[in-house]
Amino acid sequence: MSAVDNCVFCKIVKGELPAVKLFEDADALAFMDVFPASVGHALVICRDHHANLLDMPDDGLAATAVVARRIAQAIMTALRPDGFQIRQFNGAAAGQTVFHYHVHIVPVHQGVGAPAHGRERSDPHVLEELAARIRAALA
Amino acid sequence: MSAVDNCVFCKIVKGELPAVKLFEDADALAFMDVFPASVGHALVICRDHHANLLDMPDDGLAATAVVARRIAQAIMTALRPDGFQIRQFNGAAAGQTVFHYHVHIVPVHQGVGAPAHGRERSDPHVLEELAARIRAALA
Repeated sequence: MSAVDNCVFCKIVKGELPAVKLFEDADALAFMDVFPASVGHALVICRDHHANLLDMPDDGLAATAVVARRIAQAIMTALRPDGFQIRQFNGAAAGQTVFHYHVHIVPVHQGVGAPAHGRERSDPHVLEELAARIRAALA
Repeated sequence: MSAVDNCVFCKIVKGELPAVKLFEDADALAFMDVFPASVGHALVICRDHHANLLDMPDDGLAATAVVARRIAQAIMTALRPDGFQIRQFNGAAAGQTVFHYHVHIVPVHQGVGAPAHGRERSDPHVLEELAARIRAALA
């Protein structure tokens, strides 16, 4: 499905809302989560609108997964966390808040918790500085 | 990479350890988690041994994601949770305990928490009964 009018992520895809972007190609877009669960928390979305995993076509699923791997590698190189979690929520009960398929990449530092969602909006300058380091590792 | 000697999941792939299986094809295998974080918690693994997401080849990543979607749909149909989470841990600090790439499908019921890992080994008969319902929904 193409863009849906009131979808925040569709608006980011169309450039109608800002995002601190990390990478984009024909199928997927990666950007910083503005409510980070940990430092460096990034999202990868499919450009096309699909509400959740169950609606995702095979090609979009593969493209999103490959971009997520690439962004995760760049985060590991740039920020040197001790590990990372991939999280993908389906349904409000499971913590999904934007109903456009997206994959969370959550860097983890030993002994530091990372909640499902961050509680505070990150300073845009902090996100830009982190993104610059991650983009440099992608290059 | 093919099988690794002391890897629990490679042993399941080779049939050297038991598992309550849900589905298998040439690339992937799905089975019930024996320490479930919630009722119906399942795992999808790549047959080949790769330690984590960063080591996964594109084709294995796509195949595993497509099987995970299929199993998630069957869990939703069979067990009717309110939603589900996909979780995939990379590194001990991130909660990874078996170092063979695997995807968790964790059904979620509204208001009921689902920890990273369950604390108690599930009764094999309970897992078999759940698996029978999920396999019926796959068919």
